[in-house]
Amino acid sequence: MTAGYLARLAARSAATGTVLCLGIDPDPARLPAGFSRDLDGVERFAAGVLEAALPFAAAVKPNLAFFEAFGSAGVAALERLRAKVPADVPFVADAKRGDIGTTATRQAVALFDVLGADAVTVSPYLGEAAVAPLLGRGDRYAYVLCRTSNDGAGELQDLVVAEDTNAKMPAERLHERVARRVATWGPGDTVGLVVGATAPEELATIRAIAPALAFLVPGVGAQGGAVDPVLAHGPATAGAAAVGSGGGLLVNVSRGIADDGPEEASDDPFERVATRAREWARRLPVLR
Amino acid sequence: MTAGYLARLAARSAATGTVLCLGIDPDPARLPAGFSRDLDGVERFAAGVLEAALPFAAAVKPNLAFFEAFGSAGVAALERLRAKVPADVPFVADAKRGDIGTTATRQAVALFDVLGADAVTVSPYLGEAAVAPLLGRGDRYAYVLCRTSNDGAGELQDLVVAEDTNAKMPAERLHERVARRVATWGPGDTVGLVVGATAPEELATIRAIAPALAFLVPGVGAQGGAVDPVLAHGPATAGAAAVGSGGGLLVNVSRGIADDGPEEASDDPFERVATRAREWARRLPVLR
Repeated sequence: MTAGYLARLAARSAATGTVLCLGIDPDPARLPAGFSRDLDGVERFAAGVLEAALPFAAAVKPNLAFFEAFGSAGVAALERLRAKVPADVPFVADAKRGDIGTTATRQAVALFDVLGADAVTVSPYLGEAAVAPLLGRGDRYAYVLCRTSNDGAGELQDLVVAEDTNAKMPAERLHERVARRVATWGPGDTVGLVVGATAPEELATIRAIAPALAFLVPGVGAQGGAVDPVLAHGPATAGAAAVGSGGGLLVNVSRGIADDGPEEASDDPFERVATRAREWARRLPVLR
Repeated sequence: MTAGYLARLAARSAATGTVLCLGIDPDPARLPAGFSRDLDGVERFAAGVLEAALPFAAAVKPNLAFFEAFGSAGVAALERLRAKVPADVPFVADAKRGDIGTTATRQAVALFDVLGADAVTVSPYLGEAAVAPLLGRGDRYAYVLCRTSNDGAGELQDLVVAEDTNAKMPAERLHERVARRVATWGPGDTVGLVVGATAPEELATIRAIAPALAFLVPGVGAQGGAVDPVLAHGPATAGAAAVGSGGGLLVNVSRGIADDGPEEASDDPFERVATRAREWARRLPVLR
């Protein structure tokens, strides 16, 4: 029997000593010199980033849009990239899916069975029923968008929703209600939350609301979110996610690893990638 | 210069006399006899449905998940299907996308430039900034999920949010607030709403809140939503969407056209599809 996703993630975090998630979002406009601004350049660069940074990563998370932007040929490149990720490294498909009944079932086939993702990201707006096929498998995992890292995330996510006396839920912001509801979703240990590092106070509040949900945290690195609050409140404090190394936490860095800074020592772009990945892994240690 | 999406949709609705949107959601488990339960069967059936029903449809809307479930080969089949849709028939990519800044830009490339969609569906949870690249083009369109047709849609969508005194928005349900906010999104005439026929009272309320937004309405047919309330409140009553034939309304039917009922007269599956499409077009006339 395959171990659950959280157990596989904990084993990989223990082996690497980090909660770093390697984001792979290859934008042709940001490729280093020597790579063509087309699918060939994107695929070569993504494969090189994966190879160089993999030793320092607890998990790998491509955002599907950067491959879908090249149509079916781009999706084929993503499939080849996925085949390069070893089985002991959790592969998170950042797809932000969710849809009505039969459609979500086909999304689960696309992401879990065909692409072979260990985990996916999903949107909460349609409710639990619309993502049930994506969080119903004991050996896979779904991260539900809760408080995202983008500018303007609060437009809906920070709206205050009324008390729910039946469910005994207080008046609170929408992202807090999402966390409280998602904690009741799924058969157990198959669902976590996406919580941006750009909102550290919200992250601490969400952790208090949902002590047992694993967090996938974007927003450090290029988006400027601070690391310390994430390491302090990111790990789960209850349930299966809290048991293993890392407390279920994954902190994503994409551009902070892929993009060159103003001063770079090596002439080899992938040596530079490896240097940055090693440094991010050091800054994102397993603390619990 | 290309006419705006709403003008192209109005021209097609005028030409066909209907607001029927042909949904193409080919599930291998529901193919008629004689079609293999694989990508080949799905592609052959989808192409046949398109050809048979196209004369009776104001627009065509594939849900991408049914193609993505076959990986890159499935996406290639979707690209071939798209190439069969004439330029005067709006092609709506039901993708429910939306993501942070640079990612949404790549989603726009994937859906508008590479797949060639005239319109897309997007999720509101990340706020306007996260879908701006998808609603920033004058000749394309984005339908934002507002009140969806699925069971359990109300779990978040019906939560009551507090009054916003700054923006002069009352205490109301989340889907109503989404409608009110989306009415302020985009440069003008590039954004509408997805509103399910399974919630007819909500649909009427949303129309009153957002008189100028075009509606894409799923949920009649297999999901059981009634047609009359949709025809009564579905068309826009103000702005550019209200000007042309159909009032910007699209009513989607997928399984109601593709799936056989208990008694079917013809031996030819696509003759049966054409019969059902003609009947749905008759039930969904242009009324304004």
